Amino acid sequence: MFQYEKKLQYPVRIKTPNPKLASLIITQYGGPDGELGASLRYLSQRFSMPYPELKGLLTDIGTEELGHLEMIGTIVYQLTRNLSEEDIKQAGFDAYFVDHTTGVYPASSAGVPFNAFSIAVKGDVLTDLHEDLAAEQKARTTYDNILRFCDDPDVKDAIKFLRQREVVHYQRFGEGLRLATERLNSRNFYAFNPSFDAR
Amino acid sequence: MFQYEKKLQYPVRIKTPNPKLASLIITQYGGPDGELGASLRYLSQRFSMPYPELKGLLTDIGTEELGHLEMIGTIVYQLTRNLSEEDIKQAGFDAYFVDHTTGVYPASSAGVPFNAFSIAVKGDVLTDLHEDLAAEQKARTTYDNILRFCDDPDVKDAIKFLRQREVVHYQRFGEGLRLATERLNSRNFYAFNPSFDAR
Amino acid sequence: MFQYEKKLQYPVRIKTPNPKLASLIITQYGGPDGELGASLRYLSQRFSMPYPELKGLLTDIGTEELGHLEMIGTIVYQLTRNLSEEDIKQAGFDAYFVDHTTGVYPASSAGVPFNAFSIAVKGDVLTDLHEDLAAEQKARTTYDNILRFCDDPDVKDAIKFLRQREVVHYQRFGEGLRLATERLNSRNFYAFNPSFDAR
Amino acid sequence: MFQYEKKLQYPVRIKTPNPKLASLIITQYGGPDGELGASLRYLSQRFSMPYPELKGLLTDIGTEELGHLEMIGTIVYQLTRNLSEEDIKQAGFDAYFVDHTTGVYPASSAGVPFNAFSIAVKGDVLTDLHEDLAAEQKARTTYDNILRFCDDPDVKDAIKFLRQREVVHYQRFGEGLRLATERLNSRNFYAFNPSFDAR
Amino acid sequence: MFQYEKKLQYPVRIKTPNPKLASLIITQYGGPDGELGASLRYLSQRFSMPYPELKGLLTDIGTEELGHLEMIGTIVYQLTRNLSEEDIKQAGFDAYFVDHTTGVYPASSAGVPFNAFSIAVKGDVLTDLHEDLAAEQKARTTYDNILRFCDDPDVKDAIKFLRQREVVHYQRFGEGLRLATERLNSRNFYAFNPSFDAR
Amino acid sequence: MFQYEKKLQYPVRIKTPNPKLASLIITQYGGPDGELGASLRYLSQRFSMPYPELKGLLTDIGTEELGHLEMIGTIVYQLTRNLSEEDIKQAGFDAYFVDHTTGVYPASSAGVPFNAFSIAVKGDVLTDLHEDLAAEQKARTTYDNILRFCDDPDVKDAIKFLRQREVVHYQRFGEGLRLATERLNSRNFYAFNPSFDAR
Repeated sequence: MFQYEKKLQYPVRIKTPNPKLASLIITQYGGPDGELGASLRYLSQRFSMPYPELKGLLTDIGTEELGHLEMIGTIVYQLTRNLSEEDIKQAGFDAYFVDHTTGVYPASSAGVPFNAFSIAVKGDVLTDLHEDLAAEQKARTTYDNILRFCDDPDVKDAIKFLRQREVVHYQRFGEGLRLATERLNSRNFYAFNPSFDAR
Repeated sequence: MFQYEKKLQYPVRIKTPNPKLASLIITQYGGPDGELGASLRYLSQRFSMPYPELKGLLTDIGTEELGHLEMIGTIVYQLTRNLSEEDIKQAGFDAYFVDHTTGVYPASSAGVPFNAFSIAVKGDVLTDLHEDLAAEQKARTTYDNILRFCDDPDVKDAIKFLRQREVVHYQRFGEGLRLATERLNSRNFYAFNPSFDAR
Repeated sequence: MFQYEKKLQYPVRIKTPNPKLASLIITQYGGPDGELGASLRYLSQRFSMPYPELKGLLTDIGTEELGHLEMIGTIVYQLTRNLSEEDIKQAGFDAYFVDHTTGVYPASSAGVPFNAFSIAVKGDVLTDLHEDLAAEQKARTTYDNILRFCDDPDVKDAIKFLRQREVVHYQRFGEGLRLATERLNSRNFYAFNPSFDAR
Repeated sequence: MFQYEKKLQYPVRIKTPNPKLASLIITQYGGPDGELGASLRYLSQRFSMPYPELKGLLTDIGTEELGHLEMIGTIVYQLTRNLSEEDIKQAGFDAYFVDHTTGVYPASSAGVPFNAFSIAVKGDVLTDLHEDLAAEQKARTTYDNILRFCDDPDVKDAIKFLRQREVVHYQRFGEGLRLATERLNSRNFYAFNPSFDAR
Repeated sequence: MFQYEKKLQYPVRIKTPNPKLASLIITQYGGPDGELGASLRYLSQRFSMPYPELKGLLTDIGTEELGHLEMIGTIVYQLTRNLSEEDIKQAGFDAYFVDHTTGVYPASSAGVPFNAFSIAVKGDVLTDLHEDLAAEQKARTTYDNILRFCDDPDVKDAIKFLRQREVVHYQRFGEGLRLATERLNSRNFYAFNPSFDAR
Repeated sequence: MFQYEKKLQYPVRIKTPNPKLASLIITQYGGPDGELGASLRYLSQRFSMPYPELKGLLTDIGTEELGHLEMIGTIVYQLTRNLSEEDIKQAGFDAYFVDHTTGVYPASSAGVPFNAFSIAVKGDVLTDLHEDLAAEQKARTTYDNILRFCDDPDVKDAIKFLRQREVVHYQRFGEGLRLATERLNSRNFYAFNPSFDAR
């Protein structure tokens, strides 16, 4: 079970509203490679993960991603405070606003609601870890792209923190994959499940 | 941010695998009225909720639902342990198994991946609370229906616990709605946002 | 069965095209809380509704919502008449236009096609009525938001009519819920299905 | 606007429940080529249809399809009355039942919620009529397939009526296409929009 | 099986980037009536097509549409080369860019990922051919609409080529339908499957 | 552009129909980790891939996957030939049959239409290659799972061929990743984009 601790993993204090930027960053809330997908992927995969260290790894990172989801939600919320109707229109935020006001809804930057098609749980140790390595790279790329549109140092700072965490997670999943392939006694660097290959 | 506590909110100890039952119960993992949708709805709505008590309520219940998601995942996992290929075929679990082995994937009992179209975040105090009251009733109905197909007391016990929590949440959201309508100084029992009605 | 009467429930006579506004209002045609979802929800729920008064209520409101769908379609159509290519580009209506010209297609303001994931039919008297109360509040909020972007009195007038009808429907569903809870002889204000609670 | 007339277009009186058959027939409620899609397609296309006869044709057939939607809903409802839990399980109706009890929900036979991706509104006279001709053939094929699984004469009779209406609609859309091509003064039997071809 | 030939069916040499236009044209890559849907529809339908000439027709056109998909991808790619961050923002291309950088992803102009709900494979000779005739008209309309927003002769030239091919395909499917109805010995111009009508 | 060569990459000659098995294998036609997604992913990623060798690799493998899509379609088609209505019902193939007869439609084993949410094109060399490595592992796992339900040596043989090709593709993408990281002069085995890390 989960306990909520009333603080963000990393502080978010944005002084200047910017609904246009909010509409881009929201993709890390509910878009194809965002934090919701990340936490859901890892917290779902852990049930069938046979090795305790890897189960723990998935739980740790999945739980941290829930905190990142909260950070992204906070960024989106702070970027959309105190907007006039004119601000909303000029930023092209009206299509979102009409359906959600300034509530934080899990959608991509294109406005498409979150869809679990974007995550995989295959129930295979090596496959799930590959999925996770790819997921971290995809999230990292999205943060790279977001950073290109951020001028506000308050936003940049939080996004850079989140991007850095994806790099760390990628490395941890890489170590996890090494550990798993050793256990599976594979002689293949690319890590296939030997029990199947032996059939 | 969230802390993971290594225990379930309520113990799940299922002795007898039953993949058919697992394929029904999974709808409370990733189906339209399941625990993923519940936690995501409440944890998303809280950003724009203006009253601290209601923000706290959404955070509390949203966090608890994450623990319910974990319980459902555990039930599904335990119900699908040690299956033979014959068990899988006879239970009609093969369509799921082919894509997810015995990994726990957020889908409905029909096998449709989770879709955030099934939740609403409208950024309006009264509307979001009505959405939440309806959500709890929908989850309650799904648990009612699941109970009709459960013979195993181990499963029944956990599902009844979860169903009971939905009833409690419904009551708490009902109190929240009363609190909100008082604040909004509405004379209308059905609770419209007076600032809009006054325009 | 249904008869078409060749007039709108409330007249729509818009003199000035405004494709930007059309692209927002269309969310009440095919968006998550729009009139298509409303009529489909009520007209679907009525099959399993056991009480004749409530079955009639769902049929009445569901049929009226079909007329609202027609009104919204008419508004969108009138707002997109006689556009030059320049008008379309400046309004950002081109993404829609490329796929639908000025045809009226059931999508949200973000351009996402209608998806029945946004409605629930649970086959439980109390749950379906709660779903309906929430639906009316969600539609009301969307109309509130649309009104913030309407300067044209011709559009405003029709939208206000539609918004007002949602308030009336909400009240009627509230009465329906009272009626249902009395029948179910519930002593619980929050209206659970006693047959299940008694098990 | 629409008026509801309290009778079905064609009587449905099914004496014997058959949840398995219900789960197939529901695809004509909310599946890709069902009556919901049909009515929504025609009632949406009519806004931009320039010729009064064709606008009238779309309105007529669209309205009739709403009545067919009601008939299909009634068939599904009558086929799922008075079921025991055992009946539900044996028919494989449990995946549906868990989420909708015996409520009638717009989904395909595979259990996928209705999605407007399955209909097109292109705002072009000839294209929309071709879409409609194809739609009637698709619905006709689905009814053909349903008939292969119907032994019950009560069900067969209603399905045959519905199938026959699709044939009639197809013929009427064929006449509509001829009328449209004459108006567009096309010399091409296959009916291209000459104004575009002349550019 | 397929062989790749390292040239486009028709040359694409765009000198001037135009991300706004790219975001419209991409709908023919992954939108509801685009080239991906076209090739997938025809290459899928051919398995169950009983007549060798029609199977060959579906294979030919389906394979050609794969080449059109490549052409559209090339157009989108060339229109988005060498963009500055300012170009991206001004063109409203940022919502796409955040998730895909300048990779070519199968989505509609609204940003909705490709969904096979937009194609039908009904396994009935006449129905599948009607679906195909409608598909060609829908693609033709989309190209008509794209042409209204193209000033660049390099783009216009390629789009006109693609539009013209849809007209040719429409005619070939029309001939295919005639051939099929003759084989089925139908006396009905509108081409129903007589084996079913005779039942 | 593509040329169709009238033979399968590997022969498929199935003597015994088996609609149940067809309904599982179809997930490799249109399911989340199937051949359609594979070819679409690689053939889409190649536009923005900067290195000719890797562009060639994506084109080669993407083209081969089109041939695998054809093989899977052929397997599904051959497994569903000459079925009686009784065969269809007993195999639970009726939900599919009602909507598609024995046409081959891109859906998952659960019957959910293909959705491009299941593939990523991120426009970043390293990320796209990681996506591809994960994709091959996911496809490999699905084939592993399919093999558990195959008794028919005719089917097994073709599936094993396809599974083996995924292993080869995985290795080739692994080499591609090594090549890319060398070019990017990364000292990090886990392959981050140094230009971004250096900022």
